[in-house]
Amino acid sequence: MTHEAGIPLGIRFRLLSDSPQDSAAQVVNDVVVGDYRDLDTLRAFARGCDVITFDHEHVPAEHLRALEADGVPVRPGPDALVHAQDKGVMRARLDALGIPCPRHRIVSDPADVAAFAAEGDGFPVVLKTVRGGYDGKGVWVVRSAEEAAEPFKAGVAVLAEEKVDFVRELAANVVRSPHGQAVAYPVVESRQVDGVCDTVIAPAPGLDEELALRAEQMALTIAKELGVIGHLAVELFQTRDGRILVNELAMRPHNSGHWTMDGAVTSQFANHVRAVLDLPLGDPRPRAKWTVMANVLGGDYPDMYSAYLHCMARDPQLKIHMYGKDVKPGRKVGHVNTYGDDLDDVLERARHAAGYLRGTITE
Amino acid sequence: MTHEAGIPLGIRFRLLSDSPQDSAAQVVNDVVVGDYRDLDTLRAFARGCDVITFDHEHVPAEHLRALEADGVPVRPGPDALVHAQDKGVMRARLDALGIPCPRHRIVSDPADVAAFAAEGDGFPVVLKTVRGGYDGKGVWVVRSAEEAAEPFKAGVAVLAEEKVDFVRELAANVVRSPHGQAVAYPVVESRQVDGVCDTVIAPAPGLDEELALRAEQMALTIAKELGVIGHLAVELFQTRDGRILVNELAMRPHNSGHWTMDGAVTSQFANHVRAVLDLPLGDPRPRAKWTVMANVLGGDYPDMYSAYLHCMARDPQLKIHMYGKDVKPGRKVGHVNTYGDDLDDVLERARHAAGYLRGTITE
Repeated sequence: MTHEAGIPLGIRFRLLSDSPQDSAAQVVNDVVVGDYRDLDTLRAFARGCDVITFDHEHVPAEHLRALEADGVPVRPGPDALVHAQDKGVMRARLDALGIPCPRHRIVSDPADVAAFAAEGDGFPVVLKTVRGGYDGKGVWVVRSAEEAAEPFKAGVAVLAEEKVDFVRELAANVVRSPHGQAVAYPVVESRQVDGVCDTVIAPAPGLDEELALRAEQMALTIAKELGVIGHLAVELFQTRDGRILVNELAMRPHNSGHWTMDGAVTSQFANHVRAVLDLPLGDPRPRAKWTVMANVLGGDYPDMYSAYLHCMARDPQLKIHMYGKDVKPGRKVGHVNTYGDDLDDVLERARHAAGYLRGTITE
Repeated sequence: MTHEAGIPLGIRFRLLSDSPQDSAAQVVNDVVVGDYRDLDTLRAFARGCDVITFDHEHVPAEHLRALEADGVPVRPGPDALVHAQDKGVMRARLDALGIPCPRHRIVSDPADVAAFAAEGDGFPVVLKTVRGGYDGKGVWVVRSAEEAAEPFKAGVAVLAEEKVDFVRELAANVVRSPHGQAVAYPVVESRQVDGVCDTVIAPAPGLDEELALRAEQMALTIAKELGVIGHLAVELFQTRDGRILVNELAMRPHNSGHWTMDGAVTSQFANHVRAVLDLPLGDPRPRAKWTVMANVLGGDYPDMYSAYLHCMARDPQLKIHMYGKDVKPGRKVGHVNTYGDDLDDVLERARHAAGYLRGTITE
């Protein structure tokens, strides 16, 4: 999708991909297949690139520092990216900046988890490996010290966090350029099912204006203070008592910003490309009153063509974005966007299409 | 741009390209370089394609018939495409359908041109080679039999047409699928400079509703009767006396439909892809009150990056679409789209950006 956004500007992409079957490798015409964890591979790849950016945060920071030392701009740079790679580093930095987070600390073993629980409101406690988790992986909700053994088995530091009593999850998406220009997309509501993002509503319905502004300013502050270049998604909890707490950071175009492809004047991908090239950023405002994004998860419906027939015939305004991935149960294989003036209608259309493409709706 | 539209549906393109420097060859990852006039090349290319479509109309009809005989669907097919390849065939067919055209007939030599002039209102007369012309090439406006020698030198049949006293040029864009579903985009005004499209305004300002409807119906009729599959652009003259006459046909996504990329719910490219795959068509309605497309012609401004800096900073809502072509004077190398509620503002923004990208505006 970043490649799609670069085409109209005549920006040529070279892609480093795990495999030729990767989504991006199917549509980019200059693909190097290799391991992003190998510095020699990265160096060979980087030769001839004007600038390097990412669609995930897992490239080791020390390799990125080596590329920077070779003179290749890396955006976002490793000093920013580490906050999206390591939840311990992220929490420490946000604390220092006075950004509200769930109560948290690094814990050493199940007994320490019990101590952490006792310091607050008790169990349940959320445990996260500081590195490597996503979409609910690497995250555990434990109700006792006995349940807390598993996270420590990976040999990675474990972060304990209070289980926040939230009314909903929000996301504040911003983009920042090397010049220091930044734009904020409207704050969205993100609805999860089984720990995976199911639906995003832009803007977040009924969100107090002052709270929305605070969330946007929080994301802009994080982008600036951490030196983020490109897109930053700040996942937030809205608590029952009216606070906003930072859940996670992502430094790349993010699922909570996919609605912008059809719902905003400038998509998150276009603005990410512009930021990485230090071009002036595009207008982040919405084009419709409501835009809804619904993720398409892999089901057991391999016949995409007849699903397209149904979905396109039912809703001529539907925007489908499939990623060309092999369909595996539960995997995000695409998303749909709908927009309009009536939120109920827009939500129903998105959910129907996503469900039909997954195969869970078969009307 | 058709490839861009195919990506979100997971449609993989194989491209037959004249050269690896072609715009499309820079962004598609499965490129065969070869000559579209060579049947063996076409046959080898077509192996493994589910369906074939075009971004120009010049592939010889007999070769397309051979591919169809090999079992490869060709959309639009040669029987439709011949009407976009041969202006003589096109005029004869539109006459038979009762579609209003400028007065015309095939002429054999300069004396015959003089006779054609005398049959109507006299000179000037427009002469066109029936094949091979575009963007003002292959078209002559002659004021006497003496001026009429040039067109006959190419050894191609020559069509004479009255020089229409038009107030403006319009275009009716429609898309039709094998199922026979069709959608019509709003009729646009197309402004030419030196025979090349300069600006397109969607919808055509001040166009009488009845006239707009007649133009759309005319385009839908042509698409149906000629068996067009995919996008059809019908270029029209609006005459001083309130008639609408067909100027040219194009059977592919067309310059007069580029505004749809940012201005319509479904772009002409997305609908062309959907039609070629016999998928239900998308909503062709505009998303803004006014959308303006301005072509970027090649000038002597090779520094695209600093032009981007200016244009993007000046207008954060500007949509730039560059084609990655080598910049040659007068060549279409890209276009910009702007949209909004105030036509004067939307026009000024598009013209400024296109002029700046060309290098003719340097404020």
